[in-house]
Amino acid sequence: MDDKQILMIPGPTPVPEQALLALAKQPIGHRSSEFGCIFEEVLQNLQWLHQTQNDVLMLTASGTGAMEAGIINFLSPGDRVLVGCNGKFGDRWADLATTYNLNVEKITADWGKPLDPEQFREKLEADTEKQIKAVIVTHSETSTGVINDLETINRHVKTHGEALIIVDAVTSLGTVNIPVDEWGIDVVVSASQKGYMIPPGLGFVSVSEKAWEAYKTAKMPRFYLDLDKYRQFQAKNTTPFTPPINLMMALQVSLQMMKKEGLANIFARHQRLMNATRAALKQLNLPLFAPDNVASPAITAVAPVQADTEQILKIMKNRYDIALAGGQDHLKGKIFRIGHLGFVTDRDILTAIGSLEATLIELGQDSLTPGAGVAAAAKVFAQSEARAPVQ
Amino acid sequence: MDDKQILMIPGPTPVPEQALLALAKQPIGHRSSEFGCIFEEVLQNLQWLHQTQNDVLMLTASGTGAMEAGIINFLSPGDRVLVGCNGKFGDRWADLATTYNLNVEKITADWGKPLDPEQFREKLEADTEKQIKAVIVTHSETSTGVINDLETINRHVKTHGEALIIVDAVTSLGTVNIPVDEWGIDVVVSASQKGYMIPPGLGFVSVSEKAWEAYKTAKMPRFYLDLDKYRQFQAKNTTPFTPPINLMMALQVSLQMMKKEGLANIFARHQRLMNATRAALKQLNLPLFAPDNVASPAITAVAPVQADTEQILKIMKNRYDIALAGGQDHLKGKIFRIGHLGFVTDRDILTAIGSLEATLIELGQDSLTPGAGVAAAAKVFAQSEARAPVQ
Repeated sequence: MDDKQILMIPGPTPVPEQALLALAKQPIGHRSSEFGCIFEEVLQNLQWLHQTQNDVLMLTASGTGAMEAGIINFLSPGDRVLVGCNGKFGDRWADLATTYNLNVEKITADWGKPLDPEQFREKLEADTEKQIKAVIVTHSETSTGVINDLETINRHVKTHGEALIIVDAVTSLGTVNIPVDEWGIDVVVSASQKGYMIPPGLGFVSVSEKAWEAYKTAKMPRFYLDLDKYRQFQAKNTTPFTPPINLMMALQVSLQMMKKEGLANIFARHQRLMNATRAALKQLNLPLFAPDNVASPAITAVAPVQADTEQILKIMKNRYDIALAGGQDHLKGKIFRIGHLGFVTDRDILTAIGSLEATLIELGQDSLTPGAGVAAAAKVFAQSEARAPVQ
Repeated sequence: MDDKQILMIPGPTPVPEQALLALAKQPIGHRSSEFGCIFEEVLQNLQWLHQTQNDVLMLTASGTGAMEAGIINFLSPGDRVLVGCNGKFGDRWADLATTYNLNVEKITADWGKPLDPEQFREKLEADTEKQIKAVIVTHSETSTGVINDLETINRHVKTHGEALIIVDAVTSLGTVNIPVDEWGIDVVVSASQKGYMIPPGLGFVSVSEKAWEAYKTAKMPRFYLDLDKYRQFQAKNTTPFTPPINLMMALQVSLQMMKKEGLANIFARHQRLMNATRAALKQLNLPLFAPDNVASPAITAVAPVQADTEQILKIMKNRYDIALAGGQDHLKGKIFRIGHLGFVTDRDILTAIGSLEATLIELGQDSLTPGAGVAAAAKVFAQSEARAPVQ
C-alpha cells in the first residue's frame, strides 16, 4: 500500500510530521531578516546539541562533504594521521585522507569488532616528536552497529597534546552522549538524516579553538568547503552560499523537538531502543553482529544463520512495509541492519520485532517461540522508567 | 500577514504546490528500487532539459559547490584559463580558479555591461601554442541581469579547438535556450533553486566527452566533488553519497511540469516576462541597469534615480509582501533586482508592477502616471500569443 512504509535503516530516518510540514513551506530569501532569525535559533540549538561553545558550521552537503571539510581545513599534505578503521566509514575516512595526500596510518579491527584504544595509546606515546597531526575516529560505525570507545581514545589524544581529534559522529550525535567541550573534541562531523530527524542535505562540522589554530597553517586549497567562510558568515547569522532553506526550516522544528525532549531523555531513549531490540533478537535466535558491550544505540546489525538475509529484508518490506538495511561491501547478504535512531519510539521496536517474528515464521523457522521477541522487548520497556506523559 | 509573501528574488524562486507536497513526503531509502526509479526518470529529464546526451551529474551542494566541481575535475594547477568577469558570479569563478592555483586571465566588463566576445577571440587566436585550457563564462550574470553572448564566445572557443568551455548557467538553464550538444558546451553548472522551481540544495554539472578526456589528466585532489564517482553511480541509477532525497522527489515533479510545458514555451514565457517587466519599468521612469539587447530573461535590475532603493524594497516587502533583491557588493543600495525566473507567470508580473507603482506613489513620485506600468506590461501580454489553455 502506498505511503505506508516505515524506515528503519540507519538513515535517512523517519521525519516528524511538523518537520515535514516545515519542509513544504514556500522558501524565503536566505538574505532576509526572517531567515536570519531562524538561522540564529538553529545555531544556538546546534551548540546545545553538541554541548559546546565551539562554532558548529552548516554545509549544504552529504555527510561525506562534511567529512572532507573536516580534513582539508586543518591538515596539510604529508601530515601523519591515525585513522581508526573497523567498518565502511572508517575506511572512507582513510580513502579521503589518502586522496588528500596525508600520511595515513590505519588502526584496524575486524568489521563488527571495536577499535582497541590501546593501539592508539601506543602510537601516540611513541610519537615523541609530535608528528601525528590528527587522530580520526568513527564513533558509531554505521556499517556494523559497533560503537568505538571515543572517550578513552580521546584521552590518549589529549595526553599526546598536539594531535587534533576528528570524530565522525554521523550516527552518534543525538543518539549517545558526546560532551564536546568537556572532552575537548576538536572536530565533530554529522549529517541531517540521522539523529537530527530531518531528510538528508545538510552536513555539520563543529570546530574547536585548537582546530582553528591548525586552520591557520593548513595548506590545502579549499573554497566551497572552506570552513572559515562559514564561520565568518555564521557570525552574522547568514551563510556564504545559498543554504538549503527548506531543510533549515525543518531543522528549526526538529531541534525544538529535541530540546523539549532533553539530551538525557534522548540518550536514554536510544539506549532503551537498543536494549529492547537486542533482547528481542536474542529470543529469536538471531545472532547479533556486535557484542553487547560495544553495541551502538543507533543501529543493530544481525547476522542470521538459519534464515536468508535477503529473504528477510524482502518479506519485511513487501508484506510489512518496513525497510531494513542490508550489509555493505563484503557484508552484503551476510547481515541486515535495523536503524533505531532519530524519530523512533518504543512502539516502533515492538512493530519491527513483531513483523520480524512473522517474517521468520513465514520463512519456516520452526524453532521460534512465537511472541518471544515482542515479549522480551516489552519486558525491557516495562522495566525502564515511564516516559514523561504527552503534553 | 503570515505566509503571504511572493518571492521575486533571483533565487530561491517560488515552488509549485505539487513540488512542495513532494518535499513533505516521508523520505525513502536512497538504496531502494523505488528511489532508483525516481532517479532514473530525473536523469532522463535532466538530459532533456540540457538538450544533451552528456552525463548530467547531481551533487548535494549549493551552486558554488557545483562551480568548484566544474573546475577541479578538469584542470590542473598552473593551467591557463580565461574567465569572463562582469559581475559577482564571474568574480567568484575567478576567485575559485585562483584558489586552485590556475593561471587566471580575466576578461572584464563593467558590471551592467556584457562581456565582449571579441576579447575572447583575440586571446584565443593569439594562443597558437594552445596553452589556454578552459574558458569560463557566466551566461546570465545574476548580480546585474546581463546575459552574455555565450553562443559567440563559444564559437571562438570551438575555433581554438583545445580549450574547454565551462558555463555558469545557474540563472540561465531553464530560462533561455542553451542547446548543449548542438553548441558543444563541455561543462554546464546549474542549481536547483532557479529555473528548476524547487528549493536550494542540489547542484548540477553536465559533462561532455571532451571534458571527461580532460578529467583523465587533471591533477587536483578531489573526493566529495569527484565527478567520476557520480558518473559511475548514476550509471546504476544511484548516488555515491546520500542524496537530498526529498529534494529529489520534488525535482521529479518539477521536471515533469517543465516537460509538460515544453522547452520552447518555457523560453518564450521567460522572454515575455522580461519584455513586460522592462516595458513597465520604462513607463515608470525607472532606469534599467542592463541595456535591452543584453537583458537576462531571468532577472531585471533597476537603478532608481529619484527614489531610494532601500525604501522601495522595504515598502514592497512590508506592505505588499513581495520580496525583491537589492544589489550585491558595490551595487548595494544602488540597484534592486526583480527575479522572474522559474515558477512565474504573466499574472505575477502584473502583481509586482502594480505593487511597485503603489510603492512609488507612497514614496511621493508625483511624475508617475498611475497605471502606466501595468498598462505597458498588459500590452506586451496582449500582443504575445495566448498560452495553451489550462488542461
